[in-house]
Amino acid sequence: MYRSHSCGELRASHVSQEVTLAGWVQKSRDKGFMIWVDLRDRYGITQLIFDEERTPANVFEKAKTLGREFVIQVTGNVIEREAKNAKIPTGDIEILVTELTILNASLLPPFTIEDATDGGEDIRMKYRYLDIRRNPVKNSLIFRHKVTMEVRKYLSSQEFIEVETPYLIKSTPEGARDFVVPSRMNEGQFYALPQSPQTFKQLLMVGGMDKYFQIVKCFRDEDLRADRQPEFTQIDCEMAFVEQEDILNVFEGLTRHLLKEIKGIDVEKFPRMTFDHAMKTYGNDKPDIRFGMEFGELNDVAQHKDFNVFNSAELVVGIAVPGAASFTRKEIDKLIDWVKRPQIGALGMVYVKYNEDGSFKSSVDKFYDQEDLAKWAEKTGAKPGDLICVLSGATNKVRAQLSALRMEMAERLGLRNPEEFAPLWVVDFPLLELDEETGHYHAMHHPFTSPKPGQLELLDTNPSDVKANAYDLVLNGNEIGGGSIRIHDKQMQAIMFKHLGFTEEEAKAQFGFLMDAFQYGAPPHGGLAFGLDRLVAILGGQETIRDFIAFPKNNSGRDVMIDAPAPIDDEQLKELSIKLDM
Amino acid sequence: MYRSHSCGELRASHVSQEVTLAGWVQKSRDKGFMIWVDLRDRYGITQLIFDEERTPANVFEKAKTLGREFVIQVTGNVIEREAKNAKIPTGDIEILVTELTILNASLLPPFTIEDATDGGEDIRMKYRYLDIRRNPVKNSLIFRHKVTMEVRKYLSSQEFIEVETPYLIKSTPEGARDFVVPSRMNEGQFYALPQSPQTFKQLLMVGGMDKYFQIVKCFRDEDLRADRQPEFTQIDCEMAFVEQEDILNVFEGLTRHLLKEIKGIDVEKFPRMTFDHAMKTYGNDKPDIRFGMEFGELNDVAQHKDFNVFNSAELVVGIAVPGAASFTRKEIDKLIDWVKRPQIGALGMVYVKYNEDGSFKSSVDKFYDQEDLAKWAEKTGAKPGDLICVLSGATNKVRAQLSALRMEMAERLGLRNPEEFAPLWVVDFPLLELDEETGHYHAMHHPFTSPKPGQLELLDTNPSDVKANAYDLVLNGNEIGGGSIRIHDKQMQAIMFKHLGFTEEEAKAQFGFLMDAFQYGAPPHGGLAFGLDRLVAILGGQETIRDFIAFPKNNSGRDVMIDAPAPIDDEQLKELSIKLDM
Repeated sequence: MYRSHSCGELRASHVSQEVTLAGWVQKSRDKGFMIWVDLRDRYGITQLIFDEERTPANVFEKAKTLGREFVIQVTGNVIEREAKNAKIPTGDIEILVTELTILNASLLPPFTIEDATDGGEDIRMKYRYLDIRRNPVKNSLIFRHKVTMEVRKYLSSQEFIEVETPYLIKSTPEGARDFVVPSRMNEGQFYALPQSPQTFKQLLMVGGMDKYFQIVKCFRDEDLRADRQPEFTQIDCEMAFVEQEDILNVFEGLTRHLLKEIKGIDVEKFPRMTFDHAMKTYGNDKPDIRFGMEFGELNDVAQHKDFNVFNSAELVVGIAVPGAASFTRKEIDKLIDWVKRPQIGALGMVYVKYNEDGSFKSSVDKFYDQEDLAKWAEKTGAKPGDLICVLSGATNKVRAQLSALRMEMAERLGLRNPEEFAPLWVVDFPLLELDEETGHYHAMHHPFTSPKPGQLELLDTNPSDVKANAYDLVLNGNEIGGGSIRIHDKQMQAIMFKHLGFTEEEAKAQFGFLMDAFQYGAPPHGGLAFGLDRLVAILGGQETIRDFIAFPKNNSGRDVMIDAPAPIDDEQLKELSIKLDM
Repeated sequence: MYRSHSCGELRASHVSQEVTLAGWVQKSRDKGFMIWVDLRDRYGITQLIFDEERTPANVFEKAKTLGREFVIQVTGNVIEREAKNAKIPTGDIEILVTELTILNASLLPPFTIEDATDGGEDIRMKYRYLDIRRNPVKNSLIFRHKVTMEVRKYLSSQEFIEVETPYLIKSTPEGARDFVVPSRMNEGQFYALPQSPQTFKQLLMVGGMDKYFQIVKCFRDEDLRADRQPEFTQIDCEMAFVEQEDILNVFEGLTRHLLKEIKGIDVEKFPRMTFDHAMKTYGNDKPDIRFGMEFGELNDVAQHKDFNVFNSAELVVGIAVPGAASFTRKEIDKLIDWVKRPQIGALGMVYVKYNEDGSFKSSVDKFYDQEDLAKWAEKTGAKPGDLICVLSGATNKVRAQLSALRMEMAERLGLRNPEEFAPLWVVDFPLLELDEETGHYHAMHHPFTSPKPGQLELLDTNPSDVKANAYDLVLNGNEIGGGSIRIHDKQMQAIMFKHLGFTEEEAKAQFGFLMDAFQYGAPPHGGLAFGLDRLVAILGGQETIRDFIAFPKNNSGRDVMIDAPAPIDDEQLKELSIKLDM
């Protein structure tokens, strides 16, 4: 046995026991006649003491050679500390060491193994195994484990069955970003890695599994934005014989369970909001509702005056930033620069200070009198002391811009408290989305999503107006889950494929098995998938997902630790019947 | 709400309640004035009754149109059955239907959805979603879920943390059977899918995670034998600061927990056996110890007589088949034919009948007298009534042949009871294995396995004799898990790579990250992986793993349901910078 106790376990009640510990040297202080070592393992830190008088001479000498991150095993007696450390659970005791074995030496680590390390992102990724020793990463991984255990426990208690679906599947034309895998045994043919187990979970419903879930890796070969990974994890769920209401209730239950078990927080019934309302009120289909600053549309009260910028705009819309009437001219100028940055793209910003005395001072006083501005205040819900920020332009664009400004102001005002949780269902998403480049419609959720009852006829005349039985679960401004009631009728699925531009042949070649399945008694069904990486990061109160993934890839999709991807040799290519074409 | 209850839920206590059920038509019997329908869902079967007198006419007419596997929703009253069916939990009641909705019709299924279906393997795989509706498959998947939940609960309770390791990793020369994945973003480079998360779990130990597990898909692109899959699932585990004894104890605990929770069986402490002993006594490193028939080596007592077949053999070895002395001449001839089949490959078989009267009758009476044969009986542990079967030849070959015969006889004698569980640890495996074709040694377990202490020196002189800190968990003649204490020292790992034929450069290119990691305080560590597919099949009392996998592939690695793998189009190949080379 390498150890009798962990480094996080010993208390005053253990005093005078002989114990054996093993772990890493966090740090050591050598005072000549006395050496203190902080010994660390996953469970905590225990102080070791080597004393010239009381420690055997050879052990004392060996202790002098210990460096940071050496792996050692010690035996000794638990004694009460003179100077107790209330900050750590083992702070009442220390170990007076009698035996010391160096299990493995260590080079000086390339960065400090401390909560606030001196290592940059790149070096930490290259030596990720050292980074994982740091509490922020280690605790994030343990936290992730706790979340997934709770997910599994809850869903199992609700009679969901976890079923593993295959990773080696078939590439689809929808799957332009599929990773593919050449098959050695089937020359010239390829598997694809799943972007999600969508069709398989639907087939499980056709197969009568009734309630399915899976915590599963998914893959997408796309250009990576800052916080995306080519492989990511979903909590994938599907239920048969359900309507939207059933699904919302079950997964609201799951989310509430997680908030309760993991964070100790009780949350009220989740509010619901239509997609249209979310866009109108927050400029965004995943609004952060931990704070207000709801949009006030000002066309009625700001147009038809002499201010041409507004008169020519499709939408004039503003928010009231609480307490910001006190901004200096310089601060406001900076804010105007901020909205004019290319990432935001506004051409300018009109502002109105709602002074504490009830008067208004705006950047457009030339065009609007106090009475006009009072109407703006009413529409944006402004109170004395607030700053009304107004943008104008094409509806979709200006909503996105004002949404960005709203989030930025909330950030600056400290309204985005990571320990406050405001979940929200957004429902009634459009079925189709117009790709403005190609002029084609594509499925906003995916091609298997059902339209709302009675809207099928609209598909031919007003495709953009058709609403879907689709819903997102939003938490603190992040989409953490999304799903839909699926089509379970062969004819309706065929109509959908047609509207998405598939020929009958293409639909059959790619999804023939699903269309076939719908002919043999497919039940009504629907589901939802959570993005696990994002969910745990938000529950953990973090902005970025990387610390919640043991071995993440960088923005070029590379694992810099193992140096993958990498070339493979010609023999292997030959076996796979492919060659490079560069 | 589609239903108020499931089809497995209603009992006599529900009589006179109005309920709504939904499910599949298992079968219907139309007696003209009365129609009975068995309605099925995942949870059970409930009998519906449509009665010309009591059921609304339009409902009654609609009920006449119902075919097998139609998906329907019914509302009606729970009534007591006249003829109760004690075989099913809902057998006391039936539903007198008042409303009927056909949710989806069904074509006639290509095979019957019954426990004993008329569908062959191929058609069941093509329509796997229908096959899953059958109890044997459905229950196997639910059983698998229960096993994995128990695994997770147990390991979590032992402070193991489930950590997801990456699927897009790096191909290694050891990995001749890697599936590879071309990277679009890194032209001409490839990821590999993991054959196991071996190096990552070791890095997690270097990273201080202390106790890791993961239920994880692994991939191997090899020619598939009957019961292998290109993607398979492991329960992958690793621990730091452990010796072999610690690992055996923990995973014996896990296995015992599963047998108790899943099967309700208490098992004694698992016996342990060295690899050498297993080979000598069972001709096999995964002996089925639910029955005896241990090998008796007969060289001492059978050689140096006039029987040249034995005299020239490296090994003469026999088993006593209980009660088989009564075999007729014809039965014995058939058995001799059996061992001479190419799959077994024996040149012949000598037999001795140990008659109930204590006399012996053998096929070699010309060469051996009763006293000689009594010695054979002693060596093989034969009792009156047994048949001693003796094979001879080169040691390894003849052991394999006799092992096959032993299993066959056990099968015929009904000694392989699937509801009896006999776990066994096999320990002290050889470190290296000689590839007789190439004359090179390769790692029997894998290149990261440590030799037993003090045996490093033997590597140069007697490589075959070096024993490893490696162990297998065997259950009923199947290896269900295997593992080892790993090397955690850079120098020793370098020596191992050298002996496995890696140049220093190759070792660095492939495993440099691991060798680097060993320099920064790698703790002693070791682990084990269970083959989940096999484990659940054995626990489920089945011979084959296929029913425990929702969507298995066939022997050519194809998913015949979705028809994968498949060709991909030129554009996609171009994006990946590869072309076909056939």
